[in-house]
Amino acid sequence: MTTESRDREHTWTEAGPVLLRDDERIDDLERNGYGIIQRRGAFCFGMDAVLLSGFAVVKPGETALDLGTGTGIIPILLEAKTPGRHFTGLEIQEESADMARRSVAYNRLEEKVEIVTGDIKEAGRLFKLASFDVVTSNPPYMNSAHGLKNPGDAKAIARHEVLCTLEDVIREGAKVLRPMGRFYMVHRPRRLVEILDNFTRHGLEPKRMKFVHPYADREANMVLIEAVRGGGALMKVESPVVVFDENGQYSDEIRTTYGY
Amino acid sequence: MTTESRDREHTWTEAGPVLLRDDERIDDLERNGYGIIQRRGAFCFGMDAVLLSGFAVVKPGETALDLGTGTGIIPILLEAKTPGRHFTGLEIQEESADMARRSVAYNRLEEKVEIVTGDIKEAGRLFKLASFDVVTSNPPYMNSAHGLKNPGDAKAIARHEVLCTLEDVIREGAKVLRPMGRFYMVHRPRRLVEILDNFTRHGLEPKRMKFVHPYADREANMVLIEAVRGGGALMKVESPVVVFDENGQYSDEIRTTYGY
Repeated sequence: MTTESRDREHTWTEAGPVLLRDDERIDDLERNGYGIIQRRGAFCFGMDAVLLSGFAVVKPGETALDLGTGTGIIPILLEAKTPGRHFTGLEIQEESADMARRSVAYNRLEEKVEIVTGDIKEAGRLFKLASFDVVTSNPPYMNSAHGLKNPGDAKAIARHEVLCTLEDVIREGAKVLRPMGRFYMVHRPRRLVEILDNFTRHGLEPKRMKFVHPYADREANMVLIEAVRGGGALMKVESPVVVFDENGQYSDEIRTTYGY
Repeated sequence: MTTESRDREHTWTEAGPVLLRDDERIDDLERNGYGIIQRRGAFCFGMDAVLLSGFAVVKPGETALDLGTGTGIIPILLEAKTPGRHFTGLEIQEESADMARRSVAYNRLEEKVEIVTGDIKEAGRLFKLASFDVVTSNPPYMNSAHGLKNPGDAKAIARHEVLCTLEDVIREGAKVLRPMGRFYMVHRPRRLVEILDNFTRHGLEPKRMKFVHPYADREANMVLIEAVRGGGALMKVESPVVVFDENGQYSDEIRTTYGY
């Protein structure tokens, strides 16, 4: 869908420095007064992205690339949380990229955050090889687009491997990471063996993991992974994140570290 | 060292149905009234073996083989905890195997538990191929014998890969497991990537893991893994085991599930 067709279907209102479509809203990120533009009924960022932005380390002066950035949540949160110098988000869906760019403008981050429209599978051509200190990704979790009613739907693309596979994400990330650069990913534990295998086959050594459990006595539903380009083999499994306490309230860690 | 030379160096006393060397003691397993013979100053079983025997599943009528059984703690605990039909322990060090056999006799388990003296690297020749329902192992954790003062010492052999490597254990276990048979291992998380890679390369799909953290806010120091011979790829990361509560006491789970 082009900007023109969107303009015909929607009315636009002014929200500070940016225009907002009538089916969009600005959600407060509770960090630095930042907001993010999201669309009702579309794929909205989840705890996954927030946890990944808390797990990823971006050091002073470093640059980071987010593969499949959607509405730009990860580069915007990393800009708020880390002393990194510059953050790039790559997104294939122009509508999401456009929302991400308007969120960047809304937060007046144009000098530090850039949103690029493009295909993850082309990242190694779109960006300079071995140029980023950090790569992040919250890729589609489901490895089959089989049986999808609308495989071209924005939500389906964000959740299923319609336009890129897990291996595409890891292979392209490995290309643009400098030696000893760090790849941070959030994914489902059910695919852990395949994830670790893909990292090592592409020269990225998994070094640090953190499992996320909804409750202390339940199996993990997310895993956060750090892999280092050219690193030595030595895994550290950090203390788990438990999202809800026994009363069903957000746990202390979620409230303090992750700002829920 | 042969039995003869041990006989010359030690006095023996009677402990129920078995003889006990003067540097040995019988520790209560707090299960079925069972005890285990251990030697002062030698490698004694740890929480690793107890946790593995709680994590492993042996169903009614099934047979299990423990690779590198030491003093026989795992087959004896599995006999106590599960409805399995028969348990075999393979141990290369004759002194340990002899202690294990005497523990079996002490607990009057000769019909259900057999201790075999032999090399893990030969397991595929010592036992019938594809014959066991379950294989367990608490192998040496350290992957280098470099710098060891006494590489032939019993403790060194139990802790370092002096006589067998991680791959030897997994390869031989895969040979003697029936299709869809289950391999249970306890190891250090630091070697997790190598462990999972070895399992998959030898046709065992890692399906279930449980991390053990000394405290809720500390990194994991043990991992329990179930891998299935010829299984499909789907990992489940169970709720973690936390050994000590915030007061430094054994946690409820350790006291109830693992009987500490």
